[in-house]
Amino acid sequence: MRELGIVRDGAVAIREGRIVAVGKTQEIAKAFRADYVISAKDKLVLPGFVDPHTHLVFAGSLEDEFQLRVEGASRMELLSSGGDILRIVKETRRAGTEKLVELGLERLDSMLAHGTTTVEAKSGYGLTTQDEIKILEATRRLNRLHCVNVVATFMGANAVPPEYNGNPEEYVNLLIGETIPKIAEKWLAEFCDVFCERRLFSLEQAKRILVRGKAYGLKPKIHADQMSLLGGAEIAADVGAVSAEHLVFSSVEGIKALAERGVIAVLLPASAFSLMIGRYADARLMIDYGVPVALGTGFSADCWVENQQLAIAMACHFMRMTPAEAVTAATINAAHAVNRAGEVGSLEVGKRADVAILNVPNHRFLGYCFGSNLVDKVIKNGRVVVDREKQDAPVFMSKIE
Amino acid sequence: MRELGIVRDGAVAIREGRIVAVGKTQEIAKAFRADYVISAKDKLVLPGFVDPHTHLVFAGSLEDEFQLRVEGASRMELLSSGGDILRIVKETRRAGTEKLVELGLERLDSMLAHGTTTVEAKSGYGLTTQDEIKILEATRRLNRLHCVNVVATFMGANAVPPEYNGNPEEYVNLLIGETIPKIAEKWLAEFCDVFCERRLFSLEQAKRILVRGKAYGLKPKIHADQMSLLGGAEIAADVGAVSAEHLVFSSVEGIKALAERGVIAVLLPASAFSLMIGRYADARLMIDYGVPVALGTGFSADCWVENQQLAIAMACHFMRMTPAEAVTAATINAAHAVNRAGEVGSLEVGKRADVAILNVPNHRFLGYCFGSNLVDKVIKNGRVVVDREKQDAPVFMSKIE
Repeated sequence: MRELGIVRDGAVAIREGRIVAVGKTQEIAKAFRADYVISAKDKLVLPGFVDPHTHLVFAGSLEDEFQLRVEGASRMELLSSGGDILRIVKETRRAGTEKLVELGLERLDSMLAHGTTTVEAKSGYGLTTQDEIKILEATRRLNRLHCVNVVATFMGANAVPPEYNGNPEEYVNLLIGETIPKIAEKWLAEFCDVFCERRLFSLEQAKRILVRGKAYGLKPKIHADQMSLLGGAEIAADVGAVSAEHLVFSSVEGIKALAERGVIAVLLPASAFSLMIGRYADARLMIDYGVPVALGTGFSADCWVENQQLAIAMACHFMRMTPAEAVTAATINAAHAVNRAGEVGSLEVGKRADVAILNVPNHRFLGYCFGSNLVDKVIKNGRVVVDREKQDAPVFMSKIE
Repeated sequence: MRELGIVRDGAVAIREGRIVAVGKTQEIAKAFRADYVISAKDKLVLPGFVDPHTHLVFAGSLEDEFQLRVEGASRMELLSSGGDILRIVKETRRAGTEKLVELGLERLDSMLAHGTTTVEAKSGYGLTTQDEIKILEATRRLNRLHCVNVVATFMGANAVPPEYNGNPEEYVNLLIGETIPKIAEKWLAEFCDVFCERRLFSLEQAKRILVRGKAYGLKPKIHADQMSLLGGAEIAADVGAVSAEHLVFSSVEGIKALAERGVIAVLLPASAFSLMIGRYADARLMIDYGVPVALGTGFSADCWVENQQLAIAMACHFMRMTPAEAVTAATINAAHAVNRAGEVGSLEVGKRADVAILNVPNHRFLGYCFGSNLVDKVIKNGRVVVDREKQDAPVFMSKIE
């Protein structure tokens, strides 16, 4: 993960939205005559970021719950009092597809402005068959309307809906008997995810859901060991999940199991930050054991962050990932986590020309400089879609005292 | 600190760069006829942020040291090996005033783009009389050239220069005998600050420097208890400092002493984050004891963050300050910390019309939404100097597969 394959004085040749050559500028300039040249002199050129974990589509916001959390309420307390995610569920159920699409487009705009060109989006704020379908239909529309590629994950098991309060098993039966088959029939998702956690879905329930999803062609992912050590990492290995996500409390055994089965660890330091649990996934141990580590924002109504650069900075600071490891995690490893590594995640011949040009001299500045958007330009499918060169420069003004 | 005096459906009337009225829009609209109206419908209108702690002026960068820090090197190890701050000192000494001004302008542009309209700037990367004067002259130029107000602090005691290695006492004598009088003679600074820390400047040395500065009209500030409990907070109270800054390891006694003497605690969660010490100032205890708490970015070569909004978000997450407290800390309390509370830091009649308009419905979103620049517009001295309304919107593009 520390090998970035850096090319100094490099250039990328793009034709019809694809990368056709990568190398030294001198060589590329000899081999190609360009109609259009985008200068990245003294700048850092990276593959567009891939954000492999977001809950992109929902209505409402939780700034009041945020304040309660600051004042000491735990997430489970908020959940028990009907706040938190269930408030978002209520508002999302009420919202029409149009509204959800509109909100999603704004969020994708912001993510793109921060250099992200591929985003995974989990459903799970609907919690009925119909509302989950509505969310996934909005997700499909977002993928069609916006230049960012949106990869859909079905996550009906994101919470136990209020109608099944105290009876999660019945809800699992609904997911298995009705929702998953319908989602699959409409080709609305590529992945199936489950929030495996105390008071949410048990290991056994998670496994049933993921196995069922798999039978319907939905590749498994799992929210594992986010708020306690339950053994979700082991389940991920057991069902052959593509990725296990969060992993804040995973055991050494769980981590070894992920390594053995090649399950990708999707780590979300901004999510742990936003939940204020004061603990982060043990990325160093995972990397040492050979687990492929990916990074995401974890964008959700609980964790409102649209900036993959900050996820990278937090990975360096909280989990001691080196800047190179964090860049790998937020690009090619993240692409693997959403099954797009053949298309995006690196600057290689044949891949989509999704490129982020950052206004810094080298990749170590990602992490070193935090809290500002370092993007200079974003190129999606070979076209410049974000150009901030002069955008943030203030209207200059002398002081007249 | 929780009382923000929020006016719903409010308006601010501005004339000749000053606030002439604040109240309900209906009332303001009756009382004034405006030549020019800036709409902030559904947005949050705040005083421009005041950043009361930055090391604004230096040349060079420490991304290599950042990587070493990620890999486990402590700041003191880096310092001992001549890296870290001493590398910046070398580059800053080599740089001309022009270069320092150019770098400073870029940083002020970015801070302004994030809503900051007043910035304190500490010297301390020169460490000779001549180089400290150069830095403070650059600071004065920045204040004249840029619309952001820059408040100068002399901090020759930011590190022991290599020429005085092993003999800090002699350097203190230089500061007292030569540097402070010269700085004061040229009116180059309003404040004097000292980095009071093991292996840097002792309590006794800090006191001598601050008392000497005071005699020359420089108001005292102190870097206290940042990396260990040395008792800097008590010294701050003892010399009647305007502010004590960092305070990560301060004792209850120290905090009580600050409260008794009305010393402002300038807290810097982003600095603690960047140093990866896993510990943050005890803001709750300080607030409970009645210490006025201010927030800053702590921008420096070690902590490259230009965004006060992130300092606010980190204050909420790491130190459990409520969004209202954090906003107070980053505006009016910060203005007090730089002796500008009569001029800026709140939207009150007679003050400068320094206003940040944020693209969120209420102040709790500061903290809740983190990592993106929430600024819609910044108004400095009554004029719109930043307008991001359509700037970050990507060039829209349909997907053609």
